[in-house]
Amino acid sequence: MARILTGIQSTGTPHLGNILGAIIPAIELSSDPKNQSLFFIADLHSFTTIKDKELLRKNTYSTAACWLAFGFDTDKNIFYRQSDVSIVCELTWYLSCFTPYPMLSNSHSFKDKSDKLSEVNTGLFTYPVLMAADILLYDANIVPVGKDQKQHLEITRDIANSFNHKFPNSLTIPQEKIDKKVMTIPGTDGQKMSKSYNNFIDIFLPEKKLKKQIMSIITDSISVDDPKDPENCTVFKLFELIADKSDVLELEKKYRHGGYGYGHAKKDLFEVMLEKYKSQRELYNHYINNQSLIEQKLIKGAEKANEIATTVLDRVRKNIGY
Amino acid sequence: MARILTGIQSTGTPHLGNILGAIIPAIELSSDPKNQSLFFIADLHSFTTIKDKELLRKNTYSTAACWLAFGFDTDKNIFYRQSDVSIVCELTWYLSCFTPYPMLSNSHSFKDKSDKLSEVNTGLFTYPVLMAADILLYDANIVPVGKDQKQHLEITRDIANSFNHKFPNSLTIPQEKIDKKVMTIPGTDGQKMSKSYNNFIDIFLPEKKLKKQIMSIITDSISVDDPKDPENCTVFKLFELIADKSDVLELEKKYRHGGYGYGHAKKDLFEVMLEKYKSQRELYNHYINNQSLIEQKLIKGAEKANEIATTVLDRVRKNIGY
Repeated sequence: MARILTGIQSTGTPHLGNILGAIIPAIELSSDPKNQSLFFIADLHSFTTIKDKELLRKNTYSTAACWLAFGFDTDKNIFYRQSDVSIVCELTWYLSCFTPYPMLSNSHSFKDKSDKLSEVNTGLFTYPVLMAADILLYDANIVPVGKDQKQHLEITRDIANSFNHKFPNSLTIPQEKIDKKVMTIPGTDGQKMSKSYNNFIDIFLPEKKLKKQIMSIITDSISVDDPKDPENCTVFKLFELIADKSDVLELEKKYRHGGYGYGHAKKDLFEVMLEKYKSQRELYNHYINNQSLIEQKLIKGAEKANEIATTVLDRVRKNIGY
Repeated sequence: MARILTGIQSTGTPHLGNILGAIIPAIELSSDPKNQSLFFIADLHSFTTIKDKELLRKNTYSTAACWLAFGFDTDKNIFYRQSDVSIVCELTWYLSCFTPYPMLSNSHSFKDKSDKLSEVNTGLFTYPVLMAADILLYDANIVPVGKDQKQHLEITRDIANSFNHKFPNSLTIPQEKIDKKVMTIPGTDGQKMSKSYNNFIDIFLPEKKLKKQIMSIITDSISVDDPKDPENCTVFKLFELIADKSDVLELEKKYRHGGYGYGHAKKDLFEVMLEKYKSQRELYNHYINNQSLIEQKLIKGAEKANEIATTVLDRVRKNIGY
């Protein structure tokens, strides 16, 4: 059995880009009987940038509610909040004594910050070590990563190898799994959908607000009557990602024929989105309105996670001599 | 009641310089009924430089045995091993998110290492944050520091103030206590006694080896017959630190009179050392030969320390929102 580990950023409600690009593929992977998946809400990482108690809590619940709404099986797998297994910080210390300083100061993620060092806190500098501990604390075999996280997994492997060299059989070396068919989901301005570009679509919004987000998608200025190129239209691209194939072909025809405006297309996208995510929107709201249900699942997950973590940390401590 | 906190390096058996300069004054301070002292063996800090299981354990026991031999009262005070209260690493993470990166990269201790960065691990870079957590986890009021540690306490206060600014009433701001009459204990070569100069005297050595260390003290080449200047002699200076005043005056006379060689003086120093530290040498060996006695005391201390630490960390967690 392979143990797959995924950390989930908890910087707000996951948007459509997160859902299509990461959450749905991850849930598919986790439902394979050969795998055990560990998913954690990375709220200790969030603390490097978010220092607001209510926001931190809200983000945790909205992130959890989204995963649950999309059917993540918390009985088969392990779903927990990072801060509920805080012994990860102890492993972080041990690992940091095996992490050459230049390995962090030369990392891409730190170099990107080097022009505004005075705003960088030490947590932002050392977070690749916490990330390594997140992975190594659970003997994870496989870590699905995007391109931007590839270097962090290399750092994890380097630290673990160096640790094992001194204290053999302490840590399991994880393998990366890079998704080859990476989907790029366009945002309302046509660029990659991202919280930081503020171009995202939040499918869990109330209808009126969701409609407003969809109506704000930027299109060109071809008039209603003229034919349109579906391949150059963000509305069409989003429709294509969500709707059934037959509906997509139908829409393509309308685009190429003319007499069908972007306003119509946006309304159709809105309708298909409401229909497609009807049950997920209901479930999401159910969880958000009953946070104790989320809490129960996270606590149960933390118990399972702590059990594995304690076993691994005891092994490490014994090898070190504590 | 003031809570006084002192971390003890566990890099080997404390030498005479440590004992006279730090251990005895600290034990005196701890016996004041108005104070509660927390002493911890900083074995998590040791891990930044020592990666040897047996050595780590040996150092912990020899350090503890020395403190116990000099009469540290572990019932009145709290005596524990840092790694037994490993939740200090969790507080370290929270604090690191409040520690500006330049605060560490500009610190003296890091700048001293900047010419050999490739050998510096991240633990060595971030250890002032662990040190801050060591202090803040126990609501310590007073931290006795040497001049070289002054900046670390400033860093601790800065981090704590910044944390409290965001999350009021989380951390107790510690005050430093700088010992004004800092004793500099000369080593066998006349320089400050230090493990790193390898010029130390280990008073717990078997007689023969201790004698050899004392006989190796470097003196000038004035012949036996000639008068000697006590103030320029390391042997005399060490004798002065240990012996009764009347014996010191007696020795001074012999120095100034002549006909009394450095060999004689070294033998007298050896004799007075054996006599002065007779009971401590016995107690030290008793503990070293019965390590379970040390273990019992450390475990009891860890229970008391964990109780305070858990209360403080719960308060911090609640304020942050975890």
